This record gives sequence, structure tokens and C-alpha cells, in this order.
Amino acid sequence: MDDRELLKVVMKVVGKEKCSDDCAEIPFGDQVMVVTTDMLHRTTDFVPGMTDWQAGWMSAAVTLSDIASMGARPTAVLAAVGLDDWKSLEPVMQGIRDCCTKYGAEVIGGDIDRHNELTVVTTGIGVVSRRDICRRTGAWVGDLICITGTPGQAQAWLDGYHQFEKALFEPQPRVAEGQILGKVGISAMMDDSDGIALSLYDLMSVNGCGFAIDSAKLPLPAGIPAEQALELALYGGGDYELIFTIAPERFPVEGVPATVIGTVTEKRAVTVDGEPLEKRGYQHRWE
Amino acid sequence: MDDRELLKVVMKVVGKEKCSDDCAEIPFGDQVMVVTTDMLHRTTDFVPGMTDWQAGWMSAAVTLSDIASMGARPTAVLAAVGLDDWKSLEPVMQGIRDCCTKYGAEVIGGDIDRHNELTVVTTGIGVVSRRDICRRTGAWVGDLICITGTPGQAQAWLDGYHQFEKALFEPQPRVAEGQILGKVGISAMMDDSDGIALSLYDLMSVNGCGFAIDSAKLPLPAGIPAEQALELALYGGGDYELIFTIAPERFPVEGVPATVIGTVTEKRAVTVDGEPLEKRGYQHRWE
Repeated sequence: MDDRELLKVVMKVVGKEKCSDDCAEIPFGDQVMVVTTDMLHRTTDFVPGMTDWQAGWMSAAVTLSDIASMGARPTAVLAAVGLDDWKSLEPVMQGIRDCCTKYGAEVIGGDIDRHNELTVVTTGIGVVSRRDICRRTGAWVGDLICITGTPGQAQAWLDGYHQFEKALFEPQPRVAEGQILGKVGISAMMDDSDGIALSLYDLMSVNGCGFAIDSAKLPLPAGIPAEQALELALYGGGDYELIFTIAPERFPVEGVPATVIGTVTEKRAVTVDGEPLEKRGYQHRWE
Repeated sequence: MDDRELLKVVMKVVGKEKCSDDCAEIPFGDQVMVVTTDMLHRTTDFVPGMTDWQAGWMSAAVTLSDIASMGARPTAVLAAVGLDDWKSLEPVMQGIRDCCTKYGAEVIGGDIDRHNELTVVTTGIGVVSRRDICRRTGAWVGDLICITGTPGQAQAWLDGYHQFEKALFEPQPRVAEGQILGKVGISAMMDDSDGIALSLYDLMSVNGCGFAIDSAKLPLPAGIPAEQALELALYGGGDYELIFTIAPERFPVEGVPATVIGTVTEKRAVTVDGEPLEKRGYQHRWE
């Protein structure tokens, strides 16, 4: 049993339409408030060597990334912190606050709980005009598939390439880029936190088209043998880049360094160099 | 080290004003959006015998109670669920949904995580007009101190009085009552989830007055020796009643069954029958 199978259980209980984007939406006049929540904890997410401050930073960053992927401006974050050691609280909260401050959001509330391991749940709130909102749906045949930054670096650290520590420990969500892309008018967008492959399959599941990428175009983490670097870029998790589709005439977008990695196709399949791309990446699993 | 000492750490990092009410506030024209987040988990909150559905119900109820205590109408809930056993997800989500449906809110999003014990973080969003919002501040000397329902029942179950199972396992937040009280105009309000004693101390910490209650006026859980019942009513946690102060001429309030238990005093102290009330109740503790 994995995340995506469990998501079907949630869809059954609360409705499919509640589960199809990185954030939920609440309309307010011609503005939309977007809201997202993310649970992280020591065993799975805060790898050994990470400081409490970094655990806080990362917790805020993952939520701000979800807001960025909707094209929205983050405004507020709430943090529920479960603590095994009370001394973690101050650095965790400082990390959350510092990340929020960098990206223009404010910590407005939260909850403290005693827990058997450090567990942080951040809820982020953002605002975007109805016209500029970005969603996973909307990809159009012939659109370019693009990605910001260099995917695979966070996973590279996990595989022993410790020069990529910052990528995994202090992710930088694409908050400014998301808002620019919203204004320019992309067709579909999400973040690639579970890896490019799963992200493309997620996009296909809500769009009536396919996604063909070209491995030669993928930006790869530097200093790693090519084959392994490609593996990391396609299937590695823990990155917070934006993956989006856009009409060719709108690319490149000023202020958003991004790479074209493929094309949206009529044939409903996810492929790399014409072959089916494996459907794997970062997933939680249960026996 | 306990919750309230740790709250001071949070105040230092994010600002004192962010920590003084049951919800955070985001103004939208003449409306205010209130937001709150709560972490619950198996070891501490979901007592043995509780079903997964009840764990979900309780998780939604605690958050809806925070919204009620601001006088707001709950609109939306997000749920981050950490699962040791994936089979818990469906009943937990059903419990959350059923509680939300009963009180007029909708489950709009969430997150699924693998965890070493069932951990549920609900984030609730509510709306209230700027004029009707209720806060912990605002108590006025001479106001009545009132409480809805019968406090102490949830703790009574924990102390072996199993006739009170529903009170602990399926708390009913005072959502309708909170909104009525907001419109009538109470002076200060919060929920009593950590017990009456700690709630009164919390109120005193943000108001320039004192709180004198009369033990003979307290409604007590039925069928329990008087002395023990009083102990449960004053110091027991797990209830979700509203404790509020109100000008005498505005009481009683139609549609809100409540009991007057004391008076707001000039002298800054929390007392019961003229003696200092012990400052204890439900708190998380760390070594």
C-alpha cells in the first residue's frame, strides 16, 4: 500500500475534487485563498545530521512550495509541533520563522504537543487572483514541459554525494517563480517533491494528454556519473522545483530560469526518449 | 517543562500577540477568517477503546471548538494523518468528515504520512464578522463568568466513570452557541479544553482583572461523590465547553444553555469560594 493508493481512499470519503492539487482553494471575491498542510517527522524526513533549525526550515519550505506551485503569494503559516525533547522547540520555530520571513509569510499560530519523535505539521495559506491561479489540470497538446533548477540533488545527498547537503537540508521553494508563472499564464503546474516521474504521472492522471520527455535535455546534478545522475533526476524525491507546461510562444519566461525537458502529447502516456517511463519515486509505504 | 512555559518560547520567536487566542486571525474586509491547528495522537489523546472513527471525530471536534470559541462559523478543515496502519485511514477520515458535516464545515484537503503511531493534525478555518469576533481579552469587572454544559465529564471517564464515554470519545463542540454568543456580545471567551482552572488563569494572563468562582454554582457530573466531582469539574481536561464572561444584563442568552459560576473582579486573582484556585489541569509535560 502506498500514498497514491491511499489517496483513493481519501477521495472516496471526501470527494475526488478535494485531492487533485497541491493546495485546497477558498474563493474570496476575485481572489482565491489557497491552503495546504504537510506532516514531516524525524524518522522519515529529518535525516541524521540535520539540525533542529533545519528541520523547522524544511517544514516551512515544503508548505511554501505547495503554495508556490499554485502561483500564489504565501501570507501565513501555522505550525503544530510534536516534541520528544522540549529543547528542540526554539530552534525548530526559528527555522520555520526564518524560512517564512525569507518568502514573505508570517507565522500566525500553532500547537505544541508531546510526541515520541519530533513531528512538525505546517499549514500554509496563500493568496492569488482568480485569473492567475495555477493548477495541475490544463496541460495542452503541444505545450512545452519545463522544470526550474536542477532536479535530483536532494536524493544525491541521500546517495552519498554530500556536496548537495543544502539542497536536501535547506530547500528553497520557488515562491517568486511560481507567482511570475501564474501571471504569465502557464497551462499546468505542480512541485516535483516526489520526483519528476511520479509528478508526470500525477499530471497525466488529471489531464487528458501524455507527457514525453527527452533525457538529453534534463539538467543533471553535477559531478555524478551520467547514468546515476539521470536516475536521480527522474526518480529522486526531496526537491522542491516547479514542473510546468506552457505554450511554446510564452517560453522563456523572464525571471524564471527553467529548462524545457519535453512536450505534451496527444497519446496518453509518460515516456522518456520514446519509451515508457517507470512509475516510481518518493512514496511512503505500508505493509 | 510544560505547555505554558513552552508557549513563552514560541512567543519569543514569533511574537506574543500570535499566541493569545484559540485561533489566529486574518482580516478580509469586514470579515475575519480565523484559523487553528491541533495535533492529537494515539499515546496521549486516543485512549484505549476508542475506535479510529472516534479518533477522527475527536480530531475535528477539538479544532471546531477553537473556532466556536472565537464566535466564528467553521467552513473548512484540512487533515494531516500520520499512519502506522494504513487501514486506519478510511475510518479516521470518515470520523473527521462526519464531525465536519454535523457542524457545517467541509474537509478540503490534507496530507498522508507514514508514522510510528496514529497522529492526526487538523487545521480548521472559520469566518466571523469583525463586529462579532470573540477573544480571550475583553473581560470587564462585574461581568458574569459562565460555562456551557457540564464540565468534568471527559476526565470522569478517565477516572473510571465509564458512563461518560461519549463526552470523552465524541466531544460535541459548541459551534452554534459560539456564534450566538458572538452576536449577543460577550466580553471574553475561550474553550475549557485544559480544564476550568487553567482556562481562568489563561484568561487572567491577558486581562487586567481577576476571576472569582463559587463552587456551589458549578454544574457537576452526575453520580459521582461531590468532592471528586468538584475536582473533576475544576481541573479535568478533555471537555470542549465554552467559558465566557458577559455583562449581567445580557444574561441569560436565548439558545445558549449556560450556568453562571462566578464574577469578574478588580483584584487580579483566580479564586474559588474566596480562596486561591490551584493552577493545574491538563498539560503536556517534558523532563
